[in-house]
Amino acid sequence: MDTFPDFKVSAEELADLARWAYRKGWAPGTSTNYSVRLPDAAVPAVCAITSTGVDKEIIEPSDVLAVDRDGRPVNVHGGKPSAETWLHLMLYETVAAGAVLHTHSLPAALLSRLAADQGQLTLGGWELLKGLNGIATHACEVMLPIFPNSQDMRALAAQIKPRLRDAESCHGFLLAGHGLYAWGKDLREAKRHLEVFEFLLECEREVRSHGHASSAGSEHSPGR
Amino acid sequence: MDTFPDFKVSAEELADLARWAYRKGWAPGTSTNYSVRLPDAAVPAVCAITSTGVDKEIIEPSDVLAVDRDGRPVNVHGGKPSAETWLHLMLYETVAAGAVLHTHSLPAALLSRLAADQGQLTLGGWELLKGLNGIATHACEVMLPIFPNSQDMRALAAQIKPRLRDAESCHGFLLAGHGLYAWGKDLREAKRHLEVFEFLLECEREVRSHGHASSAGSEHSPGR
Amino acid sequence: MDTFPDFKVSAEELADLARWAYRKGWAPGTSTNYSVRLPDAAVPAVCAITSTGVDKEIIEPSDVLAVDRDGRPVNVHGGKPSAETWLHLMLYETVAAGAVLHTHSLPAALLSRLAADQGQLTLGGWELLKGLNGIATHACEVMLPIFPNSQDMRALAAQIKPRLRDAESCHGFLLAGHGLYAWGKDLREAKRHLEVFEFLLECEREVRSHGHASSAGSEHSPGR
Amino acid sequence: MDTFPDFKVSAEELADLARWAYRKGWAPGTSTNYSVRLPDAAVPAVCAITSTGVDKEIIEPSDVLAVDRDGRPVNVHGGKPSAETWLHLMLYETVAAGAVLHTHSLPAALLSRLAADQGQLTLGGWELLKGLNGIATHACEVMLPIFPNSQDMRALAAQIKPRLRDAESCHGFLLAGHGLYAWGKDLREAKRHLEVFEFLLECEREVRSHGHASSAGSEHSPGR
Repeated sequence: MDTFPDFKVSAEELADLARWAYRKGWAPGTSTNYSVRLPDAAVPAVCAITSTGVDKEIIEPSDVLAVDRDGRPVNVHGGKPSAETWLHLMLYETVAAGAVLHTHSLPAALLSRLAADQGQLTLGGWELLKGLNGIATHACEVMLPIFPNSQDMRALAAQIKPRLRDAESCHGFLLAGHGLYAWGKDLREAKRHLEVFEFLLECEREVRSHGHASSAGSEHSPGR
Repeated sequence: MDTFPDFKVSAEELADLARWAYRKGWAPGTSTNYSVRLPDAAVPAVCAITSTGVDKEIIEPSDVLAVDRDGRPVNVHGGKPSAETWLHLMLYETVAAGAVLHTHSLPAALLSRLAADQGQLTLGGWELLKGLNGIATHACEVMLPIFPNSQDMRALAAQIKPRLRDAESCHGFLLAGHGLYAWGKDLREAKRHLEVFEFLLECEREVRSHGHASSAGSEHSPGR
Repeated sequence: MDTFPDFKVSAEELADLARWAYRKGWAPGTSTNYSVRLPDAAVPAVCAITSTGVDKEIIEPSDVLAVDRDGRPVNVHGGKPSAETWLHLMLYETVAAGAVLHTHSLPAALLSRLAADQGQLTLGGWELLKGLNGIATHACEVMLPIFPNSQDMRALAAQIKPRLRDAESCHGFLLAGHGLYAWGKDLREAKRHLEVFEFLLECEREVRSHGHASSAGSEHSPGR
Repeated sequence: MDTFPDFKVSAEELADLARWAYRKGWAPGTSTNYSVRLPDAAVPAVCAITSTGVDKEIIEPSDVLAVDRDGRPVNVHGGKPSAETWLHLMLYETVAAGAVLHTHSLPAALLSRLAADQGQLTLGGWELLKGLNGIATHACEVMLPIFPNSQDMRALAAQIKPRLRDAESCHGFLLAGHGLYAWGKDLREAKRHLEVFEFLLECEREVRSHGHASSAGSEHSPGR
């Protein structure tokens, strides 16, 4: 696997992405993980994923491993997959994701607790929503589901899966007091979705602390 | 056009400016666009402008294109102008702008919604206002118009145009829930105006969340 | 001592760590200090520690000195140990620390005053708590003791010591209006603990300013 | 003057300092200025000072000029002294300053307006106060005078001067809605004072928005 060209490219891209996320302040204390789906030719490997416990400020491609559908490493590697590998694998099975990015930013940790009881966060009226695939206007509402956090990742994956199947064009979810999962058809789109969500989580955190006028989300009428 | 010297210089300067804006946190998720007016010799090209959908963290001069007065690209180029090119073109037609910069910062997105119903934001009493061309004292009030956001950029341009014609020494406006447009007689002045507005939007965001004494904006009387 | 290999490595690592902490904004105005325990072979030196009054943005390995159990420098060096060396030495004597890191971040300075009267800060329900050695679930409460600040470091060390002996798996404490002490079995773990605490102090600062739902800290029940 | 060794060194140090202040976010939109006192041998030059209107992100030593006691440039130079040169000159005459640094940070702009009516800001109970020359304990109160802003810098200098003469160990002041002046016996000390004030202004901004326990500023009694 370590000489499989797609894996090598993905390992480099994931290490770059993880260091970038660290610089943004979204990956403190060795937290977070990042993965890219591998092509069918890589079977039994499903995806390349960052191994657990690595400092994301200095992560290297050698800290990325390939895992099969049961979350077992398929390459010779000292690293260990994170327990959260289950959530990545569930996403590759459930949504049309080519890459899955999981961050621990401050706004994600805070808002996911603040709105945990509602079970979701509604993002509406922001121009930046257009950065999400399938969104063509700010005058819409995007639901970001929030799930209770758990240490039983298999149970959590089973709980999340049906909610995502029903959700049209869902590109992410929050775990309460934990962080954000975002995905896209490839790493580039997943990164853009991640940036959009992190920006809007920061907006919503401000709005919930200090309020904003409710009318801004409506479409302007040109004749007005 | 791609070998036209002014275009080449502008393309490099715009790519530099866009990467700088990204580093400031003002250009998340491939959003924002930046343009410079081209000289009369460049006809039919009106301005050089960043093409749509490019990640501003890594934008290159080759991601900048030249557009005519109808917003059509006039050089051989894979890029596509943003729909917001219409707002840039309207500004080159309406105000004496040599460069137009459009950012998506957090304070711009938030304040533009918070104050959307008032239709404008009043910036007064800040020393940094003197960074705006034509302002010689902090003891003044600068109006930053706020327009409802829209996906119909032609209609939006038509709505904004008369408001700007009437406004003396206006150097920018906000789109609600969207971001800031700032301009200047050249790229250097436009950049300074952008920095001034972004700083003051952050000040005003704080003031609206937590208040401040009202007397600070008045001129001090030396004899006091 | 200056040619003792462990000291040389530690001096380099501590200078790197201090410059990193400065870049995070946790070491303003020449404040803060950082130490690593030296092996038994280094007797009478107990630890390598940054000398007082050095700008942490530009600190060099030559600004690190070795001190004995009475806080006296044991190498030829122009530098002077900080008065807070006493707290470092007390920690090496009391807890199984291999490295001690003391920062002056904004959230640490603020929260330590805000919660000074309670004598401790309770961190609970955050996934990132798992970054602390011995913590396997977010569904727990970690106590961060807060002590009144003092300029008499020997008296302060004597006051803190019994509180730490009683505390199970304590990895840090706050001094009110001053900053954070964090430690770990080696420099790598101490750095991870520092990042975890600094992140969670920022979370708690937000929560105390703006509140959050109380239910997020509970373990999710998969059958729900 | 341009070949006078002290001037050359000061010009380099001031350009470095100004770019550093810009990176901190304390010098937006070409604002702020920085100076160093020149030795008696440099007469008629009193100090080296950054010229007005220069972007501090890219300022060069050639953007620094030497001015005499009337604020006139004494070297051949395209640059122009800022009107605020008067405040720098007043400080060199009134306090034992070797360097004067003037920044426009967000907390300085905000707090100086918030507390303008009180005429001063009281900083007390913070360990970092010890970063100010002459302060040996957190258990003290440092007054930071606040003056109304003005565009008449000579009148403002005349108004400020008597207040500073009376103030023991004063290392800075605020101009309302404008920014901070900090100084020290040399550039290194002035920079440390600047960092201390900027950090504490950010602390106080938070405290005024969200409050803190009042007891943290008191000295701890070891017997407690």
